[in-house]
Amino acid sequence: MLLQNIDTAFRQDADRSVEHDIDLRIRDGEIVEIGRGLSAGDTVDCSDKIALPGLINCHSHTPNLLTRGWNDDKSLFPWLNANDRVLGHAERSDKRAAARLSAVLMLETGTTTVNDMWNTYLVDELETTGIRALVGNGMGATEDTDPALVRESVEANRAFAEDYRDHPTIHPAIPVHSVYRATADLLQAAHDLAAAHDLPFHIHVSETRQENEGCRAEHGMTPTAWLDELRVLDHRAVLAHCVHLTEGDRTAIAAADAGIVHCATANLKLGSGIADVPSMDDIPIGIGTDGAASNNSLNLFREGRTAALVHKRDDPSAITAQRVLDMVTCEAAAVLGMADTIGSLEVGKRADIALLDKSDPTLRPYVGDDGLLSNLIYSFHGQADTTIVDGEIVVEDGTALVGIDTATETIAAFYDGLDERRDGPT
Amino acid sequence: MLLQNIDTAFRQDADRSVEHDIDLRIRDGEIVEIGRGLSAGDTVDCSDKIALPGLINCHSHTPNLLTRGWNDDKSLFPWLNANDRVLGHAERSDKRAAARLSAVLMLETGTTTVNDMWNTYLVDELETTGIRALVGNGMGATEDTDPALVRESVEANRAFAEDYRDHPTIHPAIPVHSVYRATADLLQAAHDLAAAHDLPFHIHVSETRQENEGCRAEHGMTPTAWLDELRVLDHRAVLAHCVHLTEGDRTAIAAADAGIVHCATANLKLGSGIADVPSMDDIPIGIGTDGAASNNSLNLFREGRTAALVHKRDDPSAITAQRVLDMVTCEAAAVLGMADTIGSLEVGKRADIALLDKSDPTLRPYVGDDGLLSNLIYSFHGQADTTIVDGEIVVEDGTALVGIDTATETIAAFYDGLDERRDGPT
Repeated sequence: MLLQNIDTAFRQDADRSVEHDIDLRIRDGEIVEIGRGLSAGDTVDCSDKIALPGLINCHSHTPNLLTRGWNDDKSLFPWLNANDRVLGHAERSDKRAAARLSAVLMLETGTTTVNDMWNTYLVDELETTGIRALVGNGMGATEDTDPALVRESVEANRAFAEDYRDHPTIHPAIPVHSVYRATADLLQAAHDLAAAHDLPFHIHVSETRQENEGCRAEHGMTPTAWLDELRVLDHRAVLAHCVHLTEGDRTAIAAADAGIVHCATANLKLGSGIADVPSMDDIPIGIGTDGAASNNSLNLFREGRTAALVHKRDDPSAITAQRVLDMVTCEAAAVLGMADTIGSLEVGKRADIALLDKSDPTLRPYVGDDGLLSNLIYSFHGQADTTIVDGEIVVEDGTALVGIDTATETIAAFYDGLDERRDGPT
Repeated sequence: MLLQNIDTAFRQDADRSVEHDIDLRIRDGEIVEIGRGLSAGDTVDCSDKIALPGLINCHSHTPNLLTRGWNDDKSLFPWLNANDRVLGHAERSDKRAAARLSAVLMLETGTTTVNDMWNTYLVDELETTGIRALVGNGMGATEDTDPALVRESVEANRAFAEDYRDHPTIHPAIPVHSVYRATADLLQAAHDLAAAHDLPFHIHVSETRQENEGCRAEHGMTPTAWLDELRVLDHRAVLAHCVHLTEGDRTAIAAADAGIVHCATANLKLGSGIADVPSMDDIPIGIGTDGAASNNSLNLFREGRTAALVHKRDDPSAITAQRVLDMVTCEAAAVLGMADTIGSLEVGKRADIALLDKSDPTLRPYVGDDGLLSNLIYSFHGQADTTIVDGEIVVEDGTALVGIDTATETIAAFYDGLDERRDGPT
């Protein structure tokens, strides 16, 4: 396939180069040539399109769309309880329907990769939509948990990692909920597994003040310091939220070359606070929407804008439009340990591409590449015209090629039956 | 015209009633009947539509779209200077093109009314798009300004107010820039004119700390206290921004029954700070996007979401989805002194209505009216299917009936010629 005559391409390579009227050739899911005057049989006219590397959502929970809008206006722990009470009544088929709808909402807004914490049973559904997904078997444990169960969940992740080692769009990752839902043994076993298979180690860290206080009470130190103490903090760590880091935490994360995921909306919406992103120049940072139950949108353009705005409140130069684009493309890829694979439009990368309609009124008019970049981040509504993942077109004319009607019917039926289920045994 | 079988209507009346499968009849631009089983010749099938009162943008500057994305990452005063330097090279035709494009972006996102500070020469352009607009002739003065000029600008507003007294969609308003760009004489003359014609008195107030400091240095009190001292603070006052109010300011504004316009994005983006909206329960508050040069979007759904999120950061219940909907409909109408005319779907109100496609994936699925309301505020992308102003359809299938191609060409030509103009005399 040849994307021919792209009006403007934000390549997001090391130079952040922006090119005009170029062609991009895709073969076997890979970008194999970028240049001018290329020709091929199967061409897509892109003369009215803006091309970006597909956006990367560094932290989400796709099944949580099932409870979007059910538990607004609560802070994290009451929200978690209320959310889990509803999700506890859901069948896997309900959660799969929510995962499909989440993936479609992401694909239609130009997101091609999601780091989906938690549920390997979603994997077929995510694969069907075409989205690139990092998936693992979510782990948690307390001191009371049977060690056999802990071993079992680590083993399940090992098996999943081996099964999906060479899959084109599904990538194994190792998710542990948090330090408050994990023992030292689990954290170390999970880390060892991540190291052995060279996989991302995905964990919520310092999302709330309460989490920090609990960790100090239990371990005498912050969650980050505890991870460091256990020697599980390294370049594979993907630390979601990080709203309440100390100076020492930041130094440890930078020294370990770990990555952070900024979830501005979920942190605001659940009253957790605002992560001090501008103070963390030496740490790679990606952006995550978190699940649709706490965001409640899955649109990374919107999320990037919100992330920039909250940090500008005292200093308008705190985060630029270019930095936001980095945090959803090349910098995000680095956070996930996938910088060689995705995050930029370069020969040798997988062909994950968002094509936007240049004539959209929220993008035009503009002055030069900087003006277009500003519009992309601050005024664009986020709907992609065409989305390509691993060389396959998955969104055409703004609509995902997999349907959502069955999924929304499944979810609606879950809602209808919920009162009855709640009265029965759980 | 009969809007038949509306799936769900958020009426935004005193009870905030939500109704299903109802009909709404429009005659001569007015809502004349709401009920079930109505019939008429000219019907619009609304069985797959959500109806809302058209949204109300309480503070904007439509020509500023001309400089959207030109001066990002600056704080208010450097931004104002940079912005004015570009706008200083613009012809009225350029600004009219920007006003048209701004109005279209608003209409396409369900906004039917804009309180457009400043330029009466835009009035024909705004009228053409069909948007309902409050417009006045912007006023400012320093002690050095020739009093004859001040009298002239007040007289221009008087003439405009008389000319447009009975216009169906263009409503006169009296705009003064701010206390730092106005003399006591001007403020009082403007207030007297607003009172004589019963018009809104629109002014920027306490947008930045510097503004407060300047006012304290000059008048020994805050901008609000100064307005109160001059006896120009009354129920007609529409106070834009109000980021830095004292306790005394809030008391004075509540006592005067004046209204406030919250511009969350512009205040974040220019580093002005965050207005403490949750502390102002006894003051009517509307939402404004401000101009596209400082927002940079004109989508009130997006703006409402941002407004809610920034106040939730410490307390998730600080602002609810219902409050956001109020602040862009019925409460906004009260701020503009138009509560009898717009802001709710009620018999006797003007027919300003946004119809949204119920099947949009960012709106579905949902649980009950509260779930739909949550999706409207927190996940909906904001594109309206149909927008009706004063009984006239102005957006159909998501696209405004007035075109924007000529406007974007005009703006692009302005951009192209700008380097040349900047080198010439200004």
